[in-house]
Amino acid sequence: MSGLLRVEVADDSLFGAENLPYGVFAPPGGDFRVGVRLGDYVLDLAALLEDPTFSTPSLNPFLAQGPARWRAVRDRVRGLADTALAVDAVHPLSTVRLLLPVRIGDYVDFYASIDHATNLGRLFRPEAAPLLPNWRHLPVGYHGRAGTVVVSDTPVIRPHGQCRTDSGAPEFGPTQRLDIEAELGFVVGAGSAPGVPVTVDEFDAHVFGVALINDWSARDIQAWEYQPLGPFLGKSFATSMSAWITPMAALTHARVPLPTQDPEPLPYLRGTDDHGLDIALTVRWNGEIVARPPYARMYWSPAQMLAHLTANGASIRPGDLYASGTISGPGPGECGSFIELSRGGTQPVAVAGGSRTYLADGDEVVITATAAGAAGRRIGLGQVSGRIVPARTG
Amino acid sequence: MSGLLRVEVADDSLFGAENLPYGVFAPPGGDFRVGVRLGDYVLDLAALLEDPTFSTPSLNPFLAQGPARWRAVRDRVRGLADTALAVDAVHPLSTVRLLLPVRIGDYVDFYASIDHATNLGRLFRPEAAPLLPNWRHLPVGYHGRAGTVVVSDTPVIRPHGQCRTDSGAPEFGPTQRLDIEAELGFVVGAGSAPGVPVTVDEFDAHVFGVALINDWSARDIQAWEYQPLGPFLGKSFATSMSAWITPMAALTHARVPLPTQDPEPLPYLRGTDDHGLDIALTVRWNGEIVARPPYARMYWSPAQMLAHLTANGASIRPGDLYASGTISGPGPGECGSFIELSRGGTQPVAVAGGSRTYLADGDEVVITATAAGAAGRRIGLGQVSGRIVPARTG
Repeated sequence: MSGLLRVEVADDSLFGAENLPYGVFAPPGGDFRVGVRLGDYVLDLAALLEDPTFSTPSLNPFLAQGPARWRAVRDRVRGLADTALAVDAVHPLSTVRLLLPVRIGDYVDFYASIDHATNLGRLFRPEAAPLLPNWRHLPVGYHGRAGTVVVSDTPVIRPHGQCRTDSGAPEFGPTQRLDIEAELGFVVGAGSAPGVPVTVDEFDAHVFGVALINDWSARDIQAWEYQPLGPFLGKSFATSMSAWITPMAALTHARVPLPTQDPEPLPYLRGTDDHGLDIALTVRWNGEIVARPPYARMYWSPAQMLAHLTANGASIRPGDLYASGTISGPGPGECGSFIELSRGGTQPVAVAGGSRTYLADGDEVVITATAAGAAGRRIGLGQVSGRIVPARTG
Repeated sequence: MSGLLRVEVADDSLFGAENLPYGVFAPPGGDFRVGVRLGDYVLDLAALLEDPTFSTPSLNPFLAQGPARWRAVRDRVRGLADTALAVDAVHPLSTVRLLLPVRIGDYVDFYASIDHATNLGRLFRPEAAPLLPNWRHLPVGYHGRAGTVVVSDTPVIRPHGQCRTDSGAPEFGPTQRLDIEAELGFVVGAGSAPGVPVTVDEFDAHVFGVALINDWSARDIQAWEYQPLGPFLGKSFATSMSAWITPMAALTHARVPLPTQDPEPLPYLRGTDDHGLDIALTVRWNGEIVARPPYARMYWSPAQMLAHLTANGASIRPGDLYASGTISGPGPGECGSFIELSRGGTQPVAVAGGSRTYLADGDEVVITATAAGAAGRRIGLGQVSGRIVPARTG
């Protein structure tokens, strides 16, 4: 096949030339390589730019090249988006296979929503103040398992684990409280040197873009294991990530002021132009919209999370991923986890096919999001989805 | 230079032909490649076996090849150890540079010493029972930062962090309670499939060998940050690892019965021939021996830790590392951390050059270990060392 093709993008498309997210795809019969989404098509960067950086099955080599290169490639692709392109280098999205776009180094998960932290504190520690004393002073976070981050649409096997029973002794079996956590993930591009923190103002020089994350959680396993060293097997079985990474450069119009931080953060958590992001998530459970978590409500900024992560001198590497923690707003339909939506499993949620507190086998969860773009338009962050398959037997 | 050389190993050497640990080294003027230590020499496997698996600067390709291949290479090297070898393929240990031997995927740290967990519980939660209710039912663990694992002898920069002050408000500055954690690390060779746990009896098919680990810890940062999601910046600045990985195959004579586990663990944590390891550690602080932690006292076995880590279906990859947590025995000189040796910083420890509770700038810590070998002999696990350099300024 040869010839030229101009990609037509509808005016109201969420994936126009302002967006241009990156992913790793394979065309029919071809190898995995780097592409950019435009409308309902994928542009093959390996073919269009004739650059070996894009002929590999991960974004990592490109991520490592740093912000000047990211800008140059984005400008180049924006130019291409307006021209007729070789037919062989443009593929309908519906015909390609998508891979986990990043070879993840370390995965850190934060806890940056004050509404979520308050809700969970009430459920896990009903006898105490919901927010622990450190919460307003630092972005609480921990390391998750990088090796079990999977691309959107990967089936999620219901995990086994130890859970406490009424008798006090634990039992081992499939989780009965399988939950989601709707989050935003930040993909590190340029690394840092050991011993040298990344300041709040240096965020743009290091962070390449954002992904949608579903940090599946087994609440009964988590509740029994998490003291004193934090969540482990309740989270480590699977974390789903969108196939498309939206560059920070596409999110300049989404910048919004942070909520008031009280007390004022320590100097190492302050920048000259720090901001939140107007990103609106939608959570669908078996097709039914059950929540609309507002990222703009997050207490700690993406730049503060990175400044904290590196404040002790810990270095970052291209491909590191850190996520926001569950995104919840104050309203009843704004929670990014089912433990919150069902008030600890006491109030079932209506979904297609019945009502639920936690996930049943066969259930599907789809998280989508849009961000503010230029002139009142929105751009899309793609989606992260997953279906629960029954626990293994034997 | 050409000719043949037979490596002479003293009868009482800790690194004879029973041991043969693997590392990644560069001879003078050469590239990094895989080698095996014999006595005070390094055998260049890339040259001796003419196999590209060993011409790379990490053990990962070899690790991924699995236990049959590990056995075959070990047998081959044992044969070579008795013969005259090409001079170009044998290097005095003192002339080579050593690299972090493994490209680490996920790093998990356990908490498997009942004496350490009891001691720390008393110090961090003086008002409560020292062992939390889950401790005797499962090997408590959490994910650490893989990207800041460094090879032995890498200087450790004193980290900054938030610590609570007497007023209740936190301050940011260099840690005043810099500590060590003397641990044993287990290097995963063969990976596992998602959703398929590795049983206790399958340990030998997946774990390649052991390293010595010093999991540097800032106790003041840790105490303020660790609730509710566990240790984060108090640990993530540096974790040191020995340059030599001792294969499990060299530790068959070190197998000892586990301490009594009460209550009996759940079935998924039981095997048909599970065991602990007779490995004796020595901790030197500025040259002075301050502790002799006994690995044989660890409550949870290496195989139980791996079975637990994968019980929820989490997969493992070649190069994953999991560590035991601090090794402490019940005696006063058997603790693998200075917070324990100094009873929470209240009783200074005598070291060369003065007395200490926590680490001062310029201090050096060297951890060595030996394991039981054949016929009453011992084999060496090499060492992990590090010197504290002052916190950065500005």
